[in-house]
Amino acid sequence: MPGIWEQLAQEKKRKTEALVPKEWALPNPPPSDQLDVSHVPDQCGLLTKKEIEITNSPVGILLANLASRIWSSVEVTTAFAKRAIIAHQLTNCLTEIFIDRALVRAAWLDDQLRSTGKTVGPLHGLPISLKDQINIKDIESTMGLNNHLFLIIANRNQGYTSWIGKFAERNALLVDILESQGAVLYVKTNVPQTLMWGETFNFIFGRTANPFNRSLTSGGSSGGEGALLGLKGSPLGVGSDIGGSIRGPCDWNGLYGLRPSFNRVPYSGSVNSMEGQEAILSVLGPMSANIEGVREFMKSVISAQPWNRDPMALRKKWDENAYRLVEHGDGGQLCFGILWRDGLFHPHPPITRALEIVKSALLAKGHKVIDWEPYKHSEIYANADLVYGAVGDDDFLADTMPTGEPVIKTMVPRDDEPVKWPTRKLDREIPSLVPLVSGDKKLTGYELWQVHKERRQLRAEYLEHWQATVSKTGTGRPVDVILAPVAPYAAPPHGQNKAATTYTAVWNSLDYPAFVLPVTRVSPELDPKLPPPVFYSDRDKQLYDFYEPDIFMNAPVSIQMVGRTQEDEAVIGIAELVDKALKEQRIA
Amino acid sequence: MPGIWEQLAQEKKRKTEALVPKEWALPNPPPSDQLDVSHVPDQCGLLTKKEIEITNSPVGILLANLASRIWSSVEVTTAFAKRAIIAHQLTNCLTEIFIDRALVRAAWLDDQLRSTGKTVGPLHGLPISLKDQINIKDIESTMGLNNHLFLIIANRNQGYTSWIGKFAERNALLVDILESQGAVLYVKTNVPQTLMWGETFNFIFGRTANPFNRSLTSGGSSGGEGALLGLKGSPLGVGSDIGGSIRGPCDWNGLYGLRPSFNRVPYSGSVNSMEGQEAILSVLGPMSANIEGVREFMKSVISAQPWNRDPMALRKKWDENAYRLVEHGDGGQLCFGILWRDGLFHPHPPITRALEIVKSALLAKGHKVIDWEPYKHSEIYANADLVYGAVGDDDFLADTMPTGEPVIKTMVPRDDEPVKWPTRKLDREIPSLVPLVSGDKKLTGYELWQVHKERRQLRAEYLEHWQATVSKTGTGRPVDVILAPVAPYAAPPHGQNKAATTYTAVWNSLDYPAFVLPVTRVSPELDPKLPPPVFYSDRDKQLYDFYEPDIFMNAPVSIQMVGRTQEDEAVIGIAELVDKALKEQRIA
Repeated sequence: MPGIWEQLAQEKKRKTEALVPKEWALPNPPPSDQLDVSHVPDQCGLLTKKEIEITNSPVGILLANLASRIWSSVEVTTAFAKRAIIAHQLTNCLTEIFIDRALVRAAWLDDQLRSTGKTVGPLHGLPISLKDQINIKDIESTMGLNNHLFLIIANRNQGYTSWIGKFAERNALLVDILESQGAVLYVKTNVPQTLMWGETFNFIFGRTANPFNRSLTSGGSSGGEGALLGLKGSPLGVGSDIGGSIRGPCDWNGLYGLRPSFNRVPYSGSVNSMEGQEAILSVLGPMSANIEGVREFMKSVISAQPWNRDPMALRKKWDENAYRLVEHGDGGQLCFGILWRDGLFHPHPPITRALEIVKSALLAKGHKVIDWEPYKHSEIYANADLVYGAVGDDDFLADTMPTGEPVIKTMVPRDDEPVKWPTRKLDREIPSLVPLVSGDKKLTGYELWQVHKERRQLRAEYLEHWQATVSKTGTGRPVDVILAPVAPYAAPPHGQNKAATTYTAVWNSLDYPAFVLPVTRVSPELDPKLPPPVFYSDRDKQLYDFYEPDIFMNAPVSIQMVGRTQEDEAVIGIAELVDKALKEQRIA
Repeated sequence: MPGIWEQLAQEKKRKTEALVPKEWALPNPPPSDQLDVSHVPDQCGLLTKKEIEITNSPVGILLANLASRIWSSVEVTTAFAKRAIIAHQLTNCLTEIFIDRALVRAAWLDDQLRSTGKTVGPLHGLPISLKDQINIKDIESTMGLNNHLFLIIANRNQGYTSWIGKFAERNALLVDILESQGAVLYVKTNVPQTLMWGETFNFIFGRTANPFNRSLTSGGSSGGEGALLGLKGSPLGVGSDIGGSIRGPCDWNGLYGLRPSFNRVPYSGSVNSMEGQEAILSVLGPMSANIEGVREFMKSVISAQPWNRDPMALRKKWDENAYRLVEHGDGGQLCFGILWRDGLFHPHPPITRALEIVKSALLAKGHKVIDWEPYKHSEIYANADLVYGAVGDDDFLADTMPTGEPVIKTMVPRDDEPVKWPTRKLDREIPSLVPLVSGDKKLTGYELWQVHKERRQLRAEYLEHWQATVSKTGTGRPVDVILAPVAPYAAPPHGQNKAATTYTAVWNSLDYPAFVLPVTRVSPELDPKLPPPVFYSDRDKQLYDFYEPDIFMNAPVSIQMVGRTQEDEAVIGIAELVDKALKEQRIA
């Protein structure tokens, strides 16, 4: 007989699946061994021609057509809801489904616009998907944890008042803000237990797959968003990132996304693991299949003055001058620094090819491109890992113990998983980063302070390193942004994402905003295995050995663009300019 | 035979005293039992008429006269240096004296202005004093710790390279910025060992006294600045504040001052105790005998874009609209919330009288004044104390152990102090806050995270409490700023400042900017002992029992004005308006 946590998990998963409208069940679901399902939504016959048009439209067009009543919010919401349900059947990306409620709101928004002639806000009528941890009143935020589910039940049925407040009985501030700006919320998306994994699996909802190759992970921790947005089941989603959790899923599902600087997007009222760890903060941020989604989100959220309701939120308005690159030569000739490798792992060939593509597009536009010397990435990564691991399992156990749910120790697929994806037999593994760093040592308060102190010193040195590039750029300014891999590999097979965070977590620790831009896809023709480089370590060699083009077949490849702390607006402005250069190059 | 730390302390103190120019020795020093020495600088005969005029001029006049070459920087620097030396003889306020160097720089600035017709920056020619912890290249920052002194010697003589970096071999960023803006640095000022005391005493430099009544403390930890500025030995000083260390000394020496929000004034390159404690951050901020010093400092420092060199500094420009109170009804009719008492201690009569004075001045100007309900101040204070005390003595011991210097456990005057001030026999004591809180329990990393988590929750609740006042103000806005005591008493006798931080530390924990404004002086006639209130606690009763007007005779009394996080500009704007109302009321 299953234990309490397994019963709760099964019951919850059953409830979620019961919310999938029967009329939106795929008539001919692709066979479970079909890897690429990215074309299924457009081809399955469930979506009308208009719904296909709507769900393939960029955010700018959607907002314009909604505001001018060319499309109603009910139409747009229905189209994305339907496509989200299709995406869920293909990748298992959803946790909470509340389409009826969304359609009521969409109808109200349509009515408002019709009767007043005014939009409710800049996001009027736009459906937005949310990572599971973002609280919506009366909707569960289990974060894939049975305990949370259990407590909600307890709260409701047995009145354990001592737990009130752990589960917000009201919206996260971001939800209030998005709704005040006119958004329509309709689904929440899957996450890994604890949120501290770069893949997406938990005991309630199971595993989320990559829509471009279902034998691969969609990444994590915002992996449900990744798969959903990759299939255009949402025009704009919200993820969170403490070590790469927005950027990995963006990278691996062909999405645009931003890890904003600390405290520019309000976190208040969202649940999280490791609360109280305030050195390297988790941040919420936008993910979208098109670039303008990022800017629209940031502008809308910041213009709602989150600092009046979230004590952590920076009192810092959207800076239009910064976005227009006033401090970056008005966006004329920029100097980009390319981080080809971080000194820990040589990226696989498709990643380096993506950087080459961007470099050539930028040179063609007359920008300057120089090499970026990584500065103590290994030390910064090791320090960040000490912060993440400072309390061992203590924090996670506090959440899992009440129901006896085990703390997950590996993302490698299990035999008893509720949903299975095609896997291929691998004769080798991606090396795990764990032996690189702290392991399970719990720190005292004093030791933690020393880690913070070292981190502050590393941040100071890195900024000095950046500012010193003024002597190399020829623009009179230091390097404008860094271009870097998001990970040393494209989306890896399920269970194999074990070395990816060195390329992302350093920017979290430095609090540098990082924008992910999709560039290409893995291609066996273009990305053959190359001769071995001089390896940094055995681990680096293992990663090299792992690469075979057909493992990663069709996987999207992106780059990240990194600015200095709180340069979010400039990073967005430059990303738009880079994206345009890339698109023009593709046409040319 | 004295131990190594005592030898080092004596030698260092002797070196400091040797730097007091003989020609500026007071011809007739006041007897050591003279309490009020505030008039001595103007009356001692050492200052010329012009020097008296210069040192009594507000910062705005000084800057204008320097920029228009009415006064040279050499003249102004000489005047303040002379007065600083007088102040030091009266209160023991200095640690480092480098007047020769300052005069060289002043001459260079004069020359620049003469030859180019342009000022070097907005602070052109202005002498600025610094709290000891702010590093200047080639000048010691002992922070009153023998160890630091020892290490400097070690560095220089014995090449202990493992310690290099602990002592900056370059300027603190703030020093670079102040110099780039035209300031002249000339003295550094006394602090308590560890900086975690509200009085100023250490084993090297001894104790600093209050110039208005030398039997009282000048406060701490920026108590050297307090006494120096109180005697106008500096037009503008820089202190630091983690629990009240700018505000206490401002309050008790009749000064204006600001505890800025976290990370608006760059800390990089200054030394501190408890580095790595990053929940409640220490901040640097201005202290001045006149109000415009605060604005000039903040504007100058922020306009130098500290975020380009300090990774912690907020990328947030000086917001002139915020200063002009655009979000506070353009400064028309404001609503002030007065915190009469915090629920822990009833303030002594002079403090309440100061609040009444401000209230009546504001009402006369047509502003609204309502009562501010304290919200969980006791919980916020207790939480902050857990942060401050999280590692027990471990951090301090790391600094004192190398020379065997003891960690100071009480500020009560010792028999073997190098400088003595008049003390009176007290038959009672101010209650100590220590038993209220954590004591010496050291926290684990996990426990520390729980403290952070509770703090974040308290901050969220406080902000909500503030925003909810919109229903009570009648202005359409929440309360614009809070007016509150800085401490429940005026400057107490040496060794007795043991209960003051409940009124200051809560705002550090909430990260609310707080501006101190001097209002009045303790007067036995105006401030008789009042009948006992209903006490909050035995400790509150002890504090009541301690009050006798003549103990506090002549001590300045101030109030603080508190805004929400990062409202620094608005708080300055409102403080200027309140100060004007007070001055007009005094004339009327």
